[in-house]
Amino acid sequence: MGNIVKNLAVLGSTGSIGRQTLEVVRAFPHRFRIIGLAAAKNLDLLAEQASKFKPRFIYLQDREALARLNTGGEFLPLEEMAGHPQVDTVVVAVSGRAGLAPTIAAVKSGKQVALANKESLVMAGEIITKEAALGKARILPVDSEPSAIWQCLRGEDQQPVRLILTASGGPFGHFSPAQLEKVTAEQALKHPSWHMGPKVTIDSATLMNKGLEVIEAHWLFGMPFDNIRVLVHPQSIIHSLVEFRDGSVKAQLGYPDMRLPIQYALSYPERLPNPKLPRLDWDSLDRLSFEPPDLGRFPCLRLAIEAGRKGGTYPSVLCAADEVAVAMFLAGQIGFTEIAHLVERALEQHQAANQPTLEEIMAADEWAREKVYQLSAGDNTC
Amino acid sequence: MGNIVKNLAVLGSTGSIGRQTLEVVRAFPHRFRIIGLAAAKNLDLLAEQASKFKPRFIYLQDREALARLNTGGEFLPLEEMAGHPQVDTVVVAVSGRAGLAPTIAAVKSGKQVALANKESLVMAGEIITKEAALGKARILPVDSEPSAIWQCLRGEDQQPVRLILTASGGPFGHFSPAQLEKVTAEQALKHPSWHMGPKVTIDSATLMNKGLEVIEAHWLFGMPFDNIRVLVHPQSIIHSLVEFRDGSVKAQLGYPDMRLPIQYALSYPERLPNPKLPRLDWDSLDRLSFEPPDLGRFPCLRLAIEAGRKGGTYPSVLCAADEVAVAMFLAGQIGFTEIAHLVERALEQHQAANQPTLEEIMAADEWAREKVYQLSAGDNTC
Repeated sequence: MGNIVKNLAVLGSTGSIGRQTLEVVRAFPHRFRIIGLAAAKNLDLLAEQASKFKPRFIYLQDREALARLNTGGEFLPLEEMAGHPQVDTVVVAVSGRAGLAPTIAAVKSGKQVALANKESLVMAGEIITKEAALGKARILPVDSEPSAIWQCLRGEDQQPVRLILTASGGPFGHFSPAQLEKVTAEQALKHPSWHMGPKVTIDSATLMNKGLEVIEAHWLFGMPFDNIRVLVHPQSIIHSLVEFRDGSVKAQLGYPDMRLPIQYALSYPERLPNPKLPRLDWDSLDRLSFEPPDLGRFPCLRLAIEAGRKGGTYPSVLCAADEVAVAMFLAGQIGFTEIAHLVERALEQHQAANQPTLEEIMAADEWAREKVYQLSAGDNTC
Repeated sequence: MGNIVKNLAVLGSTGSIGRQTLEVVRAFPHRFRIIGLAAAKNLDLLAEQASKFKPRFIYLQDREALARLNTGGEFLPLEEMAGHPQVDTVVVAVSGRAGLAPTIAAVKSGKQVALANKESLVMAGEIITKEAALGKARILPVDSEPSAIWQCLRGEDQQPVRLILTASGGPFGHFSPAQLEKVTAEQALKHPSWHMGPKVTIDSATLMNKGLEVIEAHWLFGMPFDNIRVLVHPQSIIHSLVEFRDGSVKAQLGYPDMRLPIQYALSYPERLPNPKLPRLDWDSLDRLSFEPPDLGRFPCLRLAIEAGRKGGTYPSVLCAADEVAVAMFLAGQIGFTEIAHLVERALEQHQAANQPTLEEIMAADEWAREKVYQLSAGDNTC
């Protein structure tokens, strides 16, 4: 550890996590060097980032458009960039299933993988953790909850007995079922404590996001589902907790700011002083409250945990069905509570494969997307 | 680590911490063996403990009385027991200044020192930490707050930027100054969250206990006084917190039960599953609240931190004056708020020695005791 410069490839550099990753990198120019930047569609921002960070490798889905802008940098597909020998740490901040292939490429190449993409572990946790072990890769969680757990486990040699993921509960924690039915996309996009992209903000409001984190934590920390708890904590100060076998509990705290877990994953095992990161104001720390989640009003959490327990291709169906349903909700095509209904019906109708291959996982994903379109088209009251 | 049996000498085995230490030992007979028991005066309980644990060494102040009871075990003075080659871990659960000499003997002999006695570090922190470094001894904190900090620091290689000690605030957190003047010993002995001996219960009510812990933490963790904060947290669930240089904060939580920090100090680096220890009930975890301490109404905390900063023999005067004043309060001789007045006046009148020897430390202790008697005799309104 110490003063070696780490070479980073940031996949998904124009999204919320990608932009915050680059903020952290700018704060420590002698520690981190950007050698790869990859974005899906935001050419303008990618070009701006490229002119600042001068990456050796660059990627945009529309290769022609990228070439016309003359950003500099050698074009490299996502998976090649993730596995390139010059890359030390791959930040996977791509959203959705597009994160899966580069994550697998990175772990197969033995990289440090700063993983912000939940879907890859949810869809293919078994494959990724096996490949990581074979390739001697290390998966470093970037999301605040698994980062909190990882920080609490630091230096602890024994497997903990329980992980407790906190959830803000989203903006509708105390809405009645009738109120939930009338929620609009505009309301759902106003998260009380976190500022995130639209998909994860809606997933926070349905608690699906927490369900995906339960599955993610299961794979990251090898913890049985029975030993993972979710606790609603509206202030989002305690990011998660770990219970050890002597009954002692450790928690990690901070204001809701993704730059801290991003920086921790990049600088690990060091902690770097960053004046731009907020520090808890001890004089204004007032009350932290907790309550069990209401699985009746927020069925997505239950559906996710059930899908995680069943395993196979169920988690892929969960992810894909949710992605389509959330997009429909954001487009005003379905109501808020229909997100869970559609996901549940897709899961019910799925014929799962056990110990699926990557191809089977992607096929289940495709099947679920198609199924949700069918369900919503055929039955507007579903 | 693992299955080696540790040989323990428990100094102060009949007090609250000593008894709870023996409870932990009984839960793990294949891990811990009692080879020494020492008590000040409680012959009956010491004899009962000796018949259960069959220690090789035994100590009571009244050696004749001990001999008459024929408890078995070889009589050994405290300091010899603390330094005996057969002892692996010395539990210093003696209260007050009597803990100082055996603590020094234990660190000089390179023992693992499970330290429950605050006064030794408060009075002679510089000497003890130097001797521990020279003798390759390890001081393992037993009190819940420093144990929490120690647990949060586990696996962290860099010095933290701040320690935050939580305080229950005692039973009189929101009493007015006029109400505080009328507090009786009976009221003060009813602590809302912890069950402890009378001296530490009164010290909790005045916040002197937290002040002593600030000085203790300064020595245990090499932390400047400016970087140690106290936060009142009436539920006593979060036992303390540590802020790292990246702004991340870790906390250790549990119900108020001294057996957990005792066990952690004994079993370290392992954590042992003990069904007798309470586990946080996640369904009933409700609210945790925090507020800065009121140094106006609770001047003992301010006095302790000032004495700690000044160093030299001031902390010894603080301890000794407090011990005498608390005894007077418990005997109904002075009012609750007079404890702080007497301690403050003793500190004001003290001519301190810098970098004192042990003899100077003990002399300052004697001076302060005498001074408090004089002050209270000469001035009943002090």
